[in-house]
Amino acid sequence: MRVAVVGAGVSGLAATKCCLDEGLEPTCFEQSQDIGGLWRYTEHVEAGRPSIYPSLISNTSKEMSAFSDFPFPEHFPAFPPNALLLEYLRRYAERFGLRQRVRAGTTVVSVRKHPDFATTGRWNVVTEAGGKRTSDVFDAVMVCSGSFSEPSLPLQCFPGIEQFRGQYFHSRQYKHPDVFQGKRVLVVGMGNSGVDIAVEASRVAAKVTISTSRGSWLLSRVFERGYPWDMVSITRLKNLIKTSLPGALSWWLINSKANKRFNHTNYGLQPDNSWPVHEALVNDDLPSYILTGRITIKPGVKEFRDNSVLFHNCPEEEPVDIVVFCTGYNVSFPFLEESVVRMENKHASLYKYVFPTHLEKPTLAVLGLIKPLGPVMPVVEMQARWVSRVFKGLCHLPSQSVMEEEVNENKKNKVKWFGLTYDEVLITEWLVYLDTLASLIGAKPSVLGLLCTDPKLALTIFFGPCSPFQFRLGGPGRWQGARQAILTQWDRVIKPTKTRVPAGYSSSFPSLLVVGFLLLLAAVIFGFK
Amino acid sequence: MRVAVVGAGVSGLAATKCCLDEGLEPTCFEQSQDIGGLWRYTEHVEAGRPSIYPSLISNTSKEMSAFSDFPFPEHFPAFPPNALLLEYLRRYAERFGLRQRVRAGTTVVSVRKHPDFATTGRWNVVTEAGGKRTSDVFDAVMVCSGSFSEPSLPLQCFPGIEQFRGQYFHSRQYKHPDVFQGKRVLVVGMGNSGVDIAVEASRVAAKVTISTSRGSWLLSRVFERGYPWDMVSITRLKNLIKTSLPGALSWWLINSKANKRFNHTNYGLQPDNSWPVHEALVNDDLPSYILTGRITIKPGVKEFRDNSVLFHNCPEEEPVDIVVFCTGYNVSFPFLEESVVRMENKHASLYKYVFPTHLEKPTLAVLGLIKPLGPVMPVVEMQARWVSRVFKGLCHLPSQSVMEEEVNENKKNKVKWFGLTYDEVLITEWLVYLDTLASLIGAKPSVLGLLCTDPKLALTIFFGPCSPFQFRLGGPGRWQGARQAILTQWDRVIKPTKTRVPAGYSSSFPSLLVVGFLLLLAAVIFGFK
Repeated sequence: MRVAVVGAGVSGLAATKCCLDEGLEPTCFEQSQDIGGLWRYTEHVEAGRPSIYPSLISNTSKEMSAFSDFPFPEHFPAFPPNALLLEYLRRYAERFGLRQRVRAGTTVVSVRKHPDFATTGRWNVVTEAGGKRTSDVFDAVMVCSGSFSEPSLPLQCFPGIEQFRGQYFHSRQYKHPDVFQGKRVLVVGMGNSGVDIAVEASRVAAKVTISTSRGSWLLSRVFERGYPWDMVSITRLKNLIKTSLPGALSWWLINSKANKRFNHTNYGLQPDNSWPVHEALVNDDLPSYILTGRITIKPGVKEFRDNSVLFHNCPEEEPVDIVVFCTGYNVSFPFLEESVVRMENKHASLYKYVFPTHLEKPTLAVLGLIKPLGPVMPVVEMQARWVSRVFKGLCHLPSQSVMEEEVNENKKNKVKWFGLTYDEVLITEWLVYLDTLASLIGAKPSVLGLLCTDPKLALTIFFGPCSPFQFRLGGPGRWQGARQAILTQWDRVIKPTKTRVPAGYSSSFPSLLVVGFLLLLAAVIFGFK
Repeated sequence: MRVAVVGAGVSGLAATKCCLDEGLEPTCFEQSQDIGGLWRYTEHVEAGRPSIYPSLISNTSKEMSAFSDFPFPEHFPAFPPNALLLEYLRRYAERFGLRQRVRAGTTVVSVRKHPDFATTGRWNVVTEAGGKRTSDVFDAVMVCSGSFSEPSLPLQCFPGIEQFRGQYFHSRQYKHPDVFQGKRVLVVGMGNSGVDIAVEASRVAAKVTISTSRGSWLLSRVFERGYPWDMVSITRLKNLIKTSLPGALSWWLINSKANKRFNHTNYGLQPDNSWPVHEALVNDDLPSYILTGRITIKPGVKEFRDNSVLFHNCPEEEPVDIVVFCTGYNVSFPFLEESVVRMENKHASLYKYVFPTHLEKPTLAVLGLIKPLGPVMPVVEMQARWVSRVFKGLCHLPSQSVMEEEVNENKKNKVKWFGLTYDEVLITEWLVYLDTLASLIGAKPSVLGLLCTDPKLALTIFFGPCSPFQFRLGGPGRWQGARQAILTQWDRVIKPTKTRVPAGYSSSFPSLLVVGFLLLLAAVIFGFK
């Protein structure tokens, strides 16, 4: 069974690997000259490819972001910079023999139903390499072309921009802060790159302002007691609590937790419509940059003038030299017909974010068109594991009407919970989604079952971070190293930072701990907070 | 009564102002061309003057750092960058007419006892301006020449440095990170500037390592719920608890509090000898720079080799291109005779860190030769208030023997509590010291007294930040605006950051708070942490 994989980024590599695991025959078409997708930095922006800036660092920790049977090397930092993430992907490709499946420099021009599609589910795939077109037939297709190549710059939403005399560009164009030297900078939009760019700009610019109409909760990589935010926040215990509590209480807890590090209202960041859970930002620097006056937060843009900008609910206009629009990306699949996957308002109607609901045969899947509230890599890998088993006929999809109903239901719920602006239909609870797909392929770990056979592991799985290795403990694709990988996850995080042990430390500390515990009782009596 | 003030930095300006308040006749000699001392940034390092880097930001908040009768402007950020701190000093000089008392471009060459010193306490002061020497007689002298002009670079402590082929320099030379481009950088010493420099270097360098034998507790400007660290930590309530608890318990509390943000052991920062309370560092960036692998912490330097360095307890040598020695400063008073003030091991034997104990007349005082665990400006101002009243004869010093005994006692305690390395004799509890001096001049606020007459103010003083305005509520130098300044201190902090109010926010939040409180009870039952 031959599978065409479109793109050799994170999703494409996972797809190729999972096809191989299931004994399928993947061919991975990559239009650029090398693998790595988003994570392959180039000094110049290349058309049709994602573009990142050199200072980009992963927002999610190496333990939570790993492919489920391939932990990051011990010596990599807890949050790898982009170059190390690419290095990890290269090692992954190396380890699982993916390179020989990748056809670099080959663009997928069109994917069309084969005339006998209704019975075979096959696809005609036309590719182009070195100016030469080739047509080929595949039994199935995995679309892994990503969603960060096509900038969204809705200038019509910014009245007066045509008369603005300063410079402006989309965040995609950003590489180095030099362009901001001595300038008054306005960053429109407060996504992760918006904040990254504002922080870098503020080190050289005369003034930096971020305009955000929605606001956002801000998380830091360095979380409670210095552990990675995702390892602390994404646990089965917390997920259970979150999903069992009434919505209002759950929201209240998130709100009070989010405001513990800093009061979002005082910092001008409080999310606009406090009730729905918006996607959170991850940035370590912003709070101190606000408190020291290096970055100012302002409401949404009302209009631009010749050399300045007006914000909603602000009387004064603010002089501006450069505007960076961090307004996100559009997704499109130019090689597909609209009848196969139709994009509307940045999302498509896909069963569990993967399968078009209306095809006669489930032989085309879209990977990565989802915004999980957690690391993306384990999610696309899980999608690939499920898809390859659906392709192989080992997993079955429900009827078209059932799938359509679920998609519509989901869309309605999302509107209720997240508010339907932009692409928020794509926001998904990370662990709930992973567990759902894992159940479909029989790889969801059973905490209760393990409690009898391996209590230590069971407790680690339940109370500890929900690292992806959990989905390789049993079922198809079981990995022998999974148990060990789970039990050593904290060691791999601490190893690269615990590079100095103070003299005489280990000897005195345990006894001090005992003393400390006794003294704690006294402290409680004193009521010291 | 004519007073010579040596230096027009923070201490010198406060000294001049306090002399004027007491009706003395100050003349402030400043060897450079302008006022501002440490805070006056220049692009090039100037001999005999402090030198700062352009990115330097105050480590203490504007409310806690203010002179006690002159709050920072409302629109200044909570932690002012160096340029704004200089601007504040200029406004202070303007407001109190200090400019006309400053003789810029005038170096104090020598301060010698006048022949009739034993009866009059007068001093012969020789100054030099434009190559011309002038001798003059003053009734008293305030030494405000600072302690950041003379770099301490103890190369003898670093074996092999003479054969090291890379570049090295003292942190004083540092201005811009460009010198580190693509280099492997070693920062020796982890004071505030060491960490600042490492953070900046890591944005352009190939690799950055900080070597610290002692380690340090790390505080962040952005503290609990986002409020400035010093406004949260330095309160009369906490001070009372700290000083009434047994030392071990107090230490344990500090330890557990310090490790809440991040575990210092995991980050390689745990102070060496955990028992004594070391001076804490203030830096917002370091933890995330460690966790993302941009900065590595290593133990003390064992020796240098041709192109590398060896650390204690580390087998591997590490290649290094540039070394920055952040090894602090020496203090000296070249214009004074050793018989007046003798420096030993970076400190001098001064009564309450101010008065030489053995002079026949208390007409010479040293300001700012102290390392309070808190903002320096209110401390030197308080010293100046006390000193000017001693000069005027309104306050009296105890006998020479009593003073000497206290100095020696203090030194012994410091050795016990802080460990006598370098200049730790100078470390002092901020609030205890301020209260002591305030008592001497009769400006210490009485919380109990206020509780009857002005309970709101009393509670704010006791539970809130111990901002310097408290020392202007009564006694000599009473300032009418003090009460108002105290009651509005939080407003001035929040004002510059609360620059965006989300739509529909104020209406829904109070009711949600009530709901939240009820739900909190439910949460406690669920045991959600």
